[in-house]
Amino acid sequence: MPAKSKIWTAALVVIGDEILSGRTEDKNIAQVARWLNGQGIRLVEVRVVPDQEQAIADSVNALRPAHDYVITTGGIGPTHDDITVDSIAAAFGVPVIVHPEARAILEEYYRDRPHGLTEARLRMARVPEGAELIPNPTSGAPGVRMGNVYILAGVPNIAAAMLAALDGRLEGGKPMVSVTVRAHVAESDVAALLKQVQDEHPGVSVGSYPFYKEGNFGADFVVRSDDEALANACAGELRRRLKDAKIEVADEA
Amino acid sequence: MPAKSKIWTAALVVIGDEILSGRTEDKNIAQVARWLNGQGIRLVEVRVVPDQEQAIADSVNALRPAHDYVITTGGIGPTHDDITVDSIAAAFGVPVIVHPEARAILEEYYRDRPHGLTEARLRMARVPEGAELIPNPTSGAPGVRMGNVYILAGVPNIAAAMLAALDGRLEGGKPMVSVTVRAHVAESDVAALLKQVQDEHPGVSVGSYPFYKEGNFGADFVVRSDDEALANACAGELRRRLKDAKIEVADEA
Repeated sequence: MPAKSKIWTAALVVIGDEILSGRTEDKNIAQVARWLNGQGIRLVEVRVVPDQEQAIADSVNALRPAHDYVITTGGIGPTHDDITVDSIAAAFGVPVIVHPEARAILEEYYRDRPHGLTEARLRMARVPEGAELIPNPTSGAPGVRMGNVYILAGVPNIAAAMLAALDGRLEGGKPMVSVTVRAHVAESDVAALLKQVQDEHPGVSVGSYPFYKEGNFGADFVVRSDDEALANACAGELRRRLKDAKIEVADEA
Repeated sequence: MPAKSKIWTAALVVIGDEILSGRTEDKNIAQVARWLNGQGIRLVEVRVVPDQEQAIADSVNALRPAHDYVITTGGIGPTHDDITVDSIAAAFGVPVIVHPEARAILEEYYRDRPHGLTEARLRMARVPEGAELIPNPTSGAPGVRMGNVYILAGVPNIAAAMLAALDGRLEGGKPMVSVTVRAHVAESDVAALLKQVQDEHPGVSVGSYPFYKEGNFGADFVVRSDDEALANACAGELRRRLKDAKIEVADEA
């Protein structure tokens, strides 16, 4: 019997008063979750915290020993409310320094732009001592890796560019495979059937997500496993049993 | 001098593998945040946790002594992956019971529907011992209040109906007022000005949120305070100083 392979896990800290006030709908949880899955890493916890040093440092220090990776989004721009780097330096108990390579990147980026590399912009070259940079092809100012903490921008398209720069660079395991079976049925009518199918397939989880759309209702049953053959077998069995019960099942996508 | 008024705070626990896998984009954080603000309660932390009893119970137990209110979304349907009630009963160290009023609501709701009140549907009448119900005008199955923990549905329009049922029923303080000043400027060019204006207005926070849309770029400066006059005065001063610096400021909305 092969050894059980390690499950790689990550946590995400979303930093931003604008999310907690409801002003901005977060887009980073979903995109980080999908990216991590592609790396064979499971996102197992998210925390959204305000722009306060203690809250940021506490959440990072609670999560970094518990997971292989911690990702943060938000708070790395040039203004006074961008305090992520300072907070994570405090979490690690190290000073903040200006990273020479980050300064060089910003000098180059702002060379021909109005006002050049101002003091405010130079804030974006500050990192916790001992940190490395994460390239940012979109807008110059780099992300930062400190230990197992990856500090990304909050603007979703900039965060996406930084994730792309990290593609394949984080060690992970097997990606989770999801197979969706959509049926036109009230989930409560097949609750026992769903549980039975899950129980007969160890290593698989079956989630049930009801929907009500444009006058239609039904449920998506999502079969998840890191063993693709097992996920497909379980989904096939679920489809067969639903059809046996005279339930309308949507064609496979 | 009047006594400093109490700041009422809340935390939100979003329960769901589908959010952590990236399959579903969460809609509840923003809607709960906005609703709480209308009640004069500040959302100060969010955690997203998987469909696992220990993770749910641990997060609820970490948050409920630290905040006036804890809200949870997700995991209260009829299927095997709906374990929120069991997890919160475990968090409080009480058994799960069938609530007589919830059973009566479901009996009525399913009386004329196919299959009636099945065993799976009756799961939705289960509550931690000692809990009260939160009305659900949308789909029958009620939400649950246990101590200071408010257990809501995960489907956003059902969660919204439960929030509406709670409108005005939670004690709170003064709502936060936000005033947005939109300027066509790189935020880094006005970083010092922003900090100065904030520092001159104690009791106000100024956030800076850059945007890049349809070829335009700029930033929204969001002035927040629970003192509306102070927020307006600070925003007015910020607009004046931006204009003095020859920066294009959008008209007030």
